[in-house]
Amino acid sequence: MHHRAKPEQIERVVETIGDMGYRAKPMPGHQRTAIGLVGNDGRVDSARLEGLPGVREIIKVSKPYKQVSREWREESTLVRLGNGTVLGGPEVVLMAGPCSVEGRGQILDIAAQVRDLGASVLRGGAFKPRTSPYSFQGLEERGLELLAEARERTGLAIVTEAVDAESVALVAEYADMIQIGTRNMQNYPLLKSAGRAGKPVLLKRGMSATITELLLAAEYLLSEGNADVALCERGVRGFDPATRNVFDLTAIPVVKSLTHLPIVADPSHATGVRDKVTPMARAAVAAGADGLIVEVHPDPPQALSDGAQSLYPEQFRELVAQCGPIARAIGRSLAPAPIPAAVSHAGA
Amino acid sequence: MHHRAKPEQIERVVETIGDMGYRAKPMPGHQRTAIGLVGNDGRVDSARLEGLPGVREIIKVSKPYKQVSREWREESTLVRLGNGTVLGGPEVVLMAGPCSVEGRGQILDIAAQVRDLGASVLRGGAFKPRTSPYSFQGLEERGLELLAEARERTGLAIVTEAVDAESVALVAEYADMIQIGTRNMQNYPLLKSAGRAGKPVLLKRGMSATITELLLAAEYLLSEGNADVALCERGVRGFDPATRNVFDLTAIPVVKSLTHLPIVADPSHATGVRDKVTPMARAAVAAGADGLIVEVHPDPPQALSDGAQSLYPEQFRELVAQCGPIARAIGRSLAPAPIPAAVSHAGA
Amino acid sequence: MHHRAKPEQIERVVETIGDMGYRAKPMPGHQRTAIGLVGNDGRVDSARLEGLPGVREIIKVSKPYKQVSREWREESTLVRLGNGTVLGGPEVVLMAGPCSVEGRGQILDIAAQVRDLGASVLRGGAFKPRTSPYSFQGLEERGLELLAEARERTGLAIVTEAVDAESVALVAEYADMIQIGTRNMQNYPLLKSAGRAGKPVLLKRGMSATITELLLAAEYLLSEGNADVALCERGVRGFDPATRNVFDLTAIPVVKSLTHLPIVADPSHATGVRDKVTPMARAAVAAGADGLIVEVHPDPPQALSDGAQSLYPEQFRELVAQCGPIARAIGRSLAPAPIPAAVSHAGA
Amino acid sequence: MHHRAKPEQIERVVETIGDMGYRAKPMPGHQRTAIGLVGNDGRVDSARLEGLPGVREIIKVSKPYKQVSREWREESTLVRLGNGTVLGGPEVVLMAGPCSVEGRGQILDIAAQVRDLGASVLRGGAFKPRTSPYSFQGLEERGLELLAEARERTGLAIVTEAVDAESVALVAEYADMIQIGTRNMQNYPLLKSAGRAGKPVLLKRGMSATITELLLAAEYLLSEGNADVALCERGVRGFDPATRNVFDLTAIPVVKSLTHLPIVADPSHATGVRDKVTPMARAAVAAGADGLIVEVHPDPPQALSDGAQSLYPEQFRELVAQCGPIARAIGRSLAPAPIPAAVSHAGA
Repeated sequence: MHHRAKPEQIERVVETIGDMGYRAKPMPGHQRTAIGLVGNDGRVDSARLEGLPGVREIIKVSKPYKQVSREWREESTLVRLGNGTVLGGPEVVLMAGPCSVEGRGQILDIAAQVRDLGASVLRGGAFKPRTSPYSFQGLEERGLELLAEARERTGLAIVTEAVDAESVALVAEYADMIQIGTRNMQNYPLLKSAGRAGKPVLLKRGMSATITELLLAAEYLLSEGNADVALCERGVRGFDPATRNVFDLTAIPVVKSLTHLPIVADPSHATGVRDKVTPMARAAVAAGADGLIVEVHPDPPQALSDGAQSLYPEQFRELVAQCGPIARAIGRSLAPAPIPAAVSHAGA
Repeated sequence: MHHRAKPEQIERVVETIGDMGYRAKPMPGHQRTAIGLVGNDGRVDSARLEGLPGVREIIKVSKPYKQVSREWREESTLVRLGNGTVLGGPEVVLMAGPCSVEGRGQILDIAAQVRDLGASVLRGGAFKPRTSPYSFQGLEERGLELLAEARERTGLAIVTEAVDAESVALVAEYADMIQIGTRNMQNYPLLKSAGRAGKPVLLKRGMSATITELLLAAEYLLSEGNADVALCERGVRGFDPATRNVFDLTAIPVVKSLTHLPIVADPSHATGVRDKVTPMARAAVAAGADGLIVEVHPDPPQALSDGAQSLYPEQFRELVAQCGPIARAIGRSLAPAPIPAAVSHAGA
Repeated sequence: MHHRAKPEQIERVVETIGDMGYRAKPMPGHQRTAIGLVGNDGRVDSARLEGLPGVREIIKVSKPYKQVSREWREESTLVRLGNGTVLGGPEVVLMAGPCSVEGRGQILDIAAQVRDLGASVLRGGAFKPRTSPYSFQGLEERGLELLAEARERTGLAIVTEAVDAESVALVAEYADMIQIGTRNMQNYPLLKSAGRAGKPVLLKRGMSATITELLLAAEYLLSEGNADVALCERGVRGFDPATRNVFDLTAIPVVKSLTHLPIVADPSHATGVRDKVTPMARAAVAAGADGLIVEVHPDPPQALSDGAQSLYPEQFRELVAQCGPIARAIGRSLAPAPIPAAVSHAGA
Repeated sequence: MHHRAKPEQIERVVETIGDMGYRAKPMPGHQRTAIGLVGNDGRVDSARLEGLPGVREIIKVSKPYKQVSREWREESTLVRLGNGTVLGGPEVVLMAGPCSVEGRGQILDIAAQVRDLGASVLRGGAFKPRTSPYSFQGLEERGLELLAEARERTGLAIVTEAVDAESVALVAEYADMIQIGTRNMQNYPLLKSAGRAGKPVLLKRGMSATITELLLAAEYLLSEGNADVALCERGVRGFDPATRNVFDLTAIPVVKSLTHLPIVADPSHATGVRDKVTPMARAAVAAGADGLIVEVHPDPPQALSDGAQSLYPEQFRELVAQCGPIARAIGRSLAPAPIPAAVSHAGA
């Protein structure tokens, strides 16, 4: 629409789209409102819309994904978490914590440490999808309660994984952001459920998903009405046993040109080796990542999962020290940890 | 146990394992009964079992997967479907049908055709996990009803996909075999649910799953008590756009040496190109596949999904004609289609 | 050209193409002669050729490769080796022998054994491209002499690898077929040299080459004037350590539809595991391979290279016994070993 | 050896190794001299060496590669080029230029431009290994002459590819650094030839080479006596058509922990898309690359090869502007372009 289009003009376009048998999706922006047409079956008579007052131009979205594409929405999406942290803006967000919530002491301890070292989001799994049925499967709801307690004490926002419709409901109740794991990127009932849960979603790229498939998975979330979606590059399957996965950092600028959604990088799963995490965190920030999600454990050799790739808190301090200058070198900065005052209050 | 071990000796071993804090799983075989010990944490005192009367030997299962391994159970598992079809025995089972159930006429038509051409199992999706949220998602329960009607009329057993706990319950009600799709191979809540559904399961290999990961996914099913599991090689992700996937036929002999479970091959998804399906079906039979699952559509260009890889019925006739001699060349035969008499009766 | 086109008509087309600034390549076939135009820069005025007497039709080759494509030449190429063995016809050719020629006793012994078991071609490396500079690098010219002696005694044709222009000259002097190895598929000076060597070439697919790249590599050979080229599928790099490579058997029907050149399969390198070689040899024949190239060693555990994937002679006997019925099931047969009479004579 | 070991003590160790039937390779370092033993067949009696005067410790190199490993030589290798540029030290070296030398005007023009924008090394192919025999194959020796002229005028060092023994001799005559291309990483006769050519070598990682294979290829160079070797990560083959290759930046810290050799990154071939080159150049520097090699063309749409990934000179200016701050953020700096004075003189 023209930037001076009146509300009634917008309303009329929406109605017309409805009359034509499609669904309209108005998206107000800073400068102007765009109106998406959902359900285009290739038979839309755009002339009927072009002539309406206030219409500036008709943009045809050529990609298989629609609402996630930059053609559909040019402005970058800002995903806001409960504690005020914003993904997708100028600040690079640090998410840190253990692979799994293992107990009260462990999670409260590491939460305080990563907050003090600069993180603004706490990661930690309560529902763990494990390759073997005999591996530790997570503390489930008890884990969520502990994460919530850690939030109370530290001011960190919480991101944690949901694995089915049932756990989506629970996670949405406790957490600030619902993680969809790599094994579930194409679990469509789960995506639909997360798309209706009313909380931001962190969608990890599937182990061998193309970027188009990642964006189509995100489209499932947006098509259910959830626009607060951040993507996550976490490495793809490769042929070289030297690293756990191949960290496809080029995905970051590729994704940013194709979609308005923010993208986070996970150097822990991408490399699988502790001493490669920090250099690759630097590289991810340099490539333009909007955030980092890093495994940090108070005592990695004792971790119940992913110990080999978890940083010692001391190493996370070093990671933050090294990534700050990289962020500044490209005109960004690391998002500050939650304000201590608020935190003291919460923890009081 | 010794092949002459008495029931009370077996009972005593089971009790002793329970006393030691583990779970016992007796597996009667043709020659002798094996008793699995589930939950081995590396501290099992095997001397305590070795000395019990009737115990022949203690076999330590060295693989990360246990109940699916040939070390655990040496005899091949036979998976029996509702219409008497057996997977894993000397006969090679033909499963055929459309990608999706699209309507009553379509499914009844193609079911009759593939039965007449030699298939003993009808495939067809009612719940379709589609890469794009805007693609046809299946007829859901209505699709299951139509499949059940097709079974009534043809005598074919039905295999169809479930995508979450809810659809597992529905599918188990209507179908003879629950398919777990490639995108869901590591959807653990779904696997657990299918493991408790009381129907045989067809578990497709994930797009970039290693064979170890496939077997660990199967372990989820067995560890929930479902031993009627068939695996399915359907191609893995590769770098060459010449075919949709890379058909990893070596997986067939590899799987057969590692596990007692049968394995089926899907040349339709593996190649993605209609005229490559038949040569690769031949190759799969030659490599030792226990079954083939093939997409056949009455009118492929009109298919709502996977048209490019669906065979015309005439091509399926040719596939059957070519695979029969291959099966005989390795001392097997194609499983016969369900007996017409029973069918007429069912359809009357 | 029309099937009754006269030699002078053919000559005139060739001359006209020359006048137009391109190179003509007449290809006489059973029914008619085709004339290829090499060097098409997209500005060819086909009208000038269309009007010439005897011209039947102008076919534009749409692929990046030209002379190797089925569009350029519809009839399958038959590659004839020195001992009369033909690749690309109805018979499936067995090539067998050790990875490397290690000494006189070893190669004469195994040559006699594989000939007696049904092979018609002897493989064995004299120049070995080894991943480590400290591994055995082959007997070089002495190895070629031993291969030639083995041919004298057995009547087997010899295929062996060349690794640079210098070794091409030597190999061409001694062998019946020059092998270009997987690491050298895109070694263009080597390809050009082999294209001018006057001996048939066995071109192995590169470790991660697409089929288009394989065909373009073959085009280097044909564009140097060597039309006696057989391709070889030997597995591509994959992510699963369960096998050495992923045997891409679908490449066989894909290649056969794109090119007139024969294709051989190498189940030894593709699987890397001795007991998977025979089932995959069966699968390759079922998929339509024109030949098999198999590593057989008189004493695999003592082999200087590739011992783990080399068959014992007894296992090769079993492979031949299993592949024969598969070949017959698709209307082919295994090529017979060289006629003993000729052999006795040669060896006298 | 002890850091105060006397020359005669070193000499005696060398002699003793010779007497034992192995080859000794003394490597003087800043602090102490190490002496490598080449040809260890697992039967070395280290006690015989341990007792010699001046011997500090016996280190067993556990990797398949020896002389390239950090176990063999702990200090990082500095590779010095003709114009004083050093690879492997604190400065990040910029190598830039066209894919191919296309003519005098083109190469002199772009050389002057990239020098003025900060490059210290000029890249440009004279021998081009092209996938199709019908593509432009390079100007060969004429191209080398033009590169030498460009060096005269700009003070840039020259890196250009050799493709066989013959071109190695020519390239070594004209260039400062011999490039071994990705298709030739396992072309062993070429590696041996380059290992004896007396010029530094830039060894590009093969399209699907593991890091171990890359290091073994470098071992071929060092085992021929050439220690001036830099490795190059240029992307590996992947499954996603979104980019030409997958830029495996984690290879940088992995390589740096395994070997003392420097490593350069090639974001042009790794991404294949012009507007992704600069963000990935930043990421490579952040990951610790010792240099960048970038395709820059005066007029990319007219380039005879790789136009789509070549930067406009203006974009290279931007790349340099963005990579400088990243280098400083990790305590390094970009190597300065050659000193203008010397250049004016050379060009006079």
